[in-house]
Amino acid sequence: MAFDDIRIVLIEPAHPGNIGAVARAMKTMSLSRLVLVRPSSFPSEQADRRAMGAIDLLQRARVVDDLDQAIGDCRLVIGGSARARTFPHSVLDARQCGARLVEETAMGEPAALVFGPERTGLANQDLDRCTYQVLIPANEAFSSLNLASAVQLICYEIFLAAHEPVAPVVLAPAERPSSQAEMEYFYEHLERALDSRGFLDGEMREVTMMKLRRLFGRSRPNSGELKLLRTLMRFIHREGE
Amino acid sequence: MAFDDIRIVLIEPAHPGNIGAVARAMKTMSLSRLVLVRPSSFPSEQADRRAMGAIDLLQRARVVDDLDQAIGDCRLVIGGSARARTFPHSVLDARQCGARLVEETAMGEPAALVFGPERTGLANQDLDRCTYQVLIPANEAFSSLNLASAVQLICYEIFLAAHEPVAPVVLAPAERPSSQAEMEYFYEHLERALDSRGFLDGEMREVTMMKLRRLFGRSRPNSGELKLLRTLMRFIHREGE
Repeated sequence: MAFDDIRIVLIEPAHPGNIGAVARAMKTMSLSRLVLVRPSSFPSEQADRRAMGAIDLLQRARVVDDLDQAIGDCRLVIGGSARARTFPHSVLDARQCGARLVEETAMGEPAALVFGPERTGLANQDLDRCTYQVLIPANEAFSSLNLASAVQLICYEIFLAAHEPVAPVVLAPAERPSSQAEMEYFYEHLERALDSRGFLDGEMREVTMMKLRRLFGRSRPNSGELKLLRTLMRFIHREGE
Repeated sequence: MAFDDIRIVLIEPAHPGNIGAVARAMKTMSLSRLVLVRPSSFPSEQADRRAMGAIDLLQRARVVDDLDQAIGDCRLVIGGSARARTFPHSVLDARQCGARLVEETAMGEPAALVFGPERTGLANQDLDRCTYQVLIPANEAFSSLNLASAVQLICYEIFLAAHEPVAPVVLAPAERPSSQAEMEYFYEHLERALDSRGFLDGEMREVTMMKLRRLFGRSRPNSGELKLLRTLMRFIHREGE
């Protein structure tokens, strides 16, 4: 596996110091690819200071405008979140997350680990773009890990998994799953098709689309399967009505 | 085992912010006993700020003049150190360290985990007071973990060891997947719907249905999701034709 195929994506990090601390945490565990989505302030002196010997990661960090640019080419995207959600995702613990990321990149695929803003965590619509949610086992009464600490823990599990091959925790699909961008294209198609039936009218649009994203996201369709699903969408679509 | 029997000892922490970050890291993993040996500045506003919801740990922290006061009643003392030493100690990795601490306190004995100053790490004479040295597996070219990150990692391993047996490696879906019979009923519905569109004519019927079974079978839909899928099937079905 290649550590360089695993990227850490921070969405709207508010404190520059945390960006530096994340870079340091990543480098201690051999990770190097940092992507920042709309950072409040970057580059910054404070980030450099907290990065210590990991300034090279900051210098090579990619800054992008939205999450899709950060993960569009990834088939496996894991969202870090302390909260259990009302509509739960497939959840990995930190150890399973490390193993799964190593397994994915062993096949030469890029993969992403996404974290939300410090105060609020990942927004639901961002979590919906993730294949899995990772939950770090923690004190139920106080599970609020610092951002850099959360990154440190998961990078540590990646490092361990990379150095002691373990049995795969999740069955890898036989064929290459579709990219996040291809899945987005499919979801748009699905939404249009259901719209043509008036099925998404009213308040339930978001919830319904989210449920469908979870469902199809879990099965990680390959390109042939996605083609089949698109045929189904065409049948659903009521033209000209 | 009792988390309260495991204490974290910081020797001469230079930055008050780190003391707060250590308290936060400890509390996320259910640890609560913090001992400070000659802190440069304590209590401090900066420590309180970084502790977030773990200020109670700072308020109950013990401040002592030397290491012996901090660990005198312990039989097991483990020293955290990034460096391998010239005269090596018995070394544990982080996972072994967590297991060893839990094992010790299960016998009702207090135990201590000791960290040195941020810049220099544990002095040799302090390490000599330890039963073991713990080394966190890390990038050999850059193994300098932040103090709070190191505490976070080891407390995490303590937390996991205390909660063993660990989570099953096979992913349990958040909700109960549908039964095979329910799935069969859905596949029949799907086949009828596609039939009404003439999509399954000819030799490809079996192959197409098999592909769809693989795809939907992988996502293991629960009953709510199956209901949603049945609605989709109704849209596909062309009535009376």
